[in-house]
Amino acid sequence: MKVKVVEVGARDGLQNEDTPLDIKTRWQFIQKLSNTGLQHIEVGAFVSPKWVPQMAGSDKLVKKALKAKADHKVKDSVKYSALVPNVRGMEDALKTGIKEIAIFGASSESFSKKNINCSIAESFDRFEKVMKLAKKNKIRVRGYLSTAFGCPYEGKVKRQKVYPLIQKMLELGVYEVSIGDTIGVATPKQVNAFLEGLQGKVDFKKVAMHFHDTRGTALANVYASLNYGIKTYDSSIGGLGGCPYALGASGNLATEDLIYMLEGMGIKTGVDIQSLIEIKRWIEKKLDRSLPSHVGRSGLPLKDTI
Amino acid sequence: MKVKVVEVGARDGLQNEDTPLDIKTRWQFIQKLSNTGLQHIEVGAFVSPKWVPQMAGSDKLVKKALKAKADHKVKDSVKYSALVPNVRGMEDALKTGIKEIAIFGASSESFSKKNINCSIAESFDRFEKVMKLAKKNKIRVRGYLSTAFGCPYEGKVKRQKVYPLIQKMLELGVYEVSIGDTIGVATPKQVNAFLEGLQGKVDFKKVAMHFHDTRGTALANVYASLNYGIKTYDSSIGGLGGCPYALGASGNLATEDLIYMLEGMGIKTGVDIQSLIEIKRWIEKKLDRSLPSHVGRSGLPLKDTI
Repeated sequence: MKVKVVEVGARDGLQNEDTPLDIKTRWQFIQKLSNTGLQHIEVGAFVSPKWVPQMAGSDKLVKKALKAKADHKVKDSVKYSALVPNVRGMEDALKTGIKEIAIFGASSESFSKKNINCSIAESFDRFEKVMKLAKKNKIRVRGYLSTAFGCPYEGKVKRQKVYPLIQKMLELGVYEVSIGDTIGVATPKQVNAFLEGLQGKVDFKKVAMHFHDTRGTALANVYASLNYGIKTYDSSIGGLGGCPYALGASGNLATEDLIYMLEGMGIKTGVDIQSLIEIKRWIEKKLDRSLPSHVGRSGLPLKDTI
Repeated sequence: MKVKVVEVGARDGLQNEDTPLDIKTRWQFIQKLSNTGLQHIEVGAFVSPKWVPQMAGSDKLVKKALKAKADHKVKDSVKYSALVPNVRGMEDALKTGIKEIAIFGASSESFSKKNINCSIAESFDRFEKVMKLAKKNKIRVRGYLSTAFGCPYEGKVKRQKVYPLIQKMLELGVYEVSIGDTIGVATPKQVNAFLEGLQGKVDFKKVAMHFHDTRGTALANVYASLNYGIKTYDSSIGGLGGCPYALGASGNLATEDLIYMLEGMGIKTGVDIQSLIEIKRWIEKKLDRSLPSHVGRSGLPLKDTI
């Protein structure tokens, strides 16, 4: 069995860190990630730098990434993408020659309103317009559906309300929906019930899981999802991504912890865990804080334990 | 379904912390733990204070705990125990009027030699002598079998070598064997294979799992074990227990993370998670370090998320 890991540290991670990093550092970061064996790296977001200063200059990063690929400095198999919230962002993204973008929606009205400033219905109107431009320009689109298990404002989210949103996103033409436990509340029982009910409604090849480790359950939830045959998982190196005290996104699942568990289970990821640990230590210095991931903190040589 | 949690923070936790706490503080700690709904609390170890200064005065703690029970200051359902490494320790333990002890062995020769200073065979000779005294004095005995999934010196440990040790411990008369992933290397696949092979060999009612979260996999491993019907788990409040850089024991599974997942899965533990979070914050101040557990770091009210 093979699993694909989508590295969201440079976007979902950094946008939730207090310290904005300059473009040079973020580009070094993306270059390092590109040499680990990771196949998909989200490099930034086309959002207003006024609202999200951490993502300023994402257009430059996309251009650099595409140039590195064109110059064969990065393996052809590595894909880059960026988050696009609306038509304005899409127009900016198109100027870079980007090949893949991601749209971002929520499963609960309150989170949608507070996080992306519109109702769920309005967000789908936006998606439609973005998708139209994407199709016209032959750009692949990934969908994020956040707060699928719980909302910081509304509490539990009913899965029956989430399923139609997943289906609607796929109908819009995204190639994959990444289902997010944005606030890290899910447990395996909830994941099992969620995927049990989703089975048959959508093709699981088009489903990715995006767990946060806010309460330590992310890997348990990954394991539950593996049992349902889900083969794509999002994670953030070092568990990069935010103050765990903040409402909303917090406590990303760490890529190196995810890779450790997968490889330990005999599931191939193609990712070099030692490189991840080195990058984690490097970015810790840049952010001047220690990151919450587990793997790499232990003094034991990994070769003996995997 | 009901699950029992054995709180090892005051023993396995504190003995692996750099900062030894005084007896007064440890007693306050045990009293606080006794009011959370936890049913079994390990209070200390009858070891030489020269080798393990963190456990000095464990006899006094046992006496205080037994007196609190006799005075009905603690619920009858709360059980206290302490680790006993040898006959010398057992003699000291007997003086306190203790009702339950634990013995501690290893699954790998190197760990046995470096950690308890004798071969596995020699450790079983010691256990026999301790068990004899225990039976004579009608004392219940729990068994720990450490490094069952991996050894810091030998790497992977073959499960076929571990099974006979579990059986041997049970034959000696322990009421339960706690199987330890002392260095936190196991993944659910290994746990599944381990328990699959153990099924039929021993009664799973007499098996507890003791996972460490060194690489973030502890809760995934608990979930795998739940699927095999294992109903007793060891954990340490706050993830108390040691520098993660040390060889050997490191990164205990945090009790509040375990309780969060279990309760979130509809499994009753009888433990009040909010009290655990308060105790965690209290002991962090005493140790002057932040503990690695996840639950309680988030700003979200738990009532909305469980």
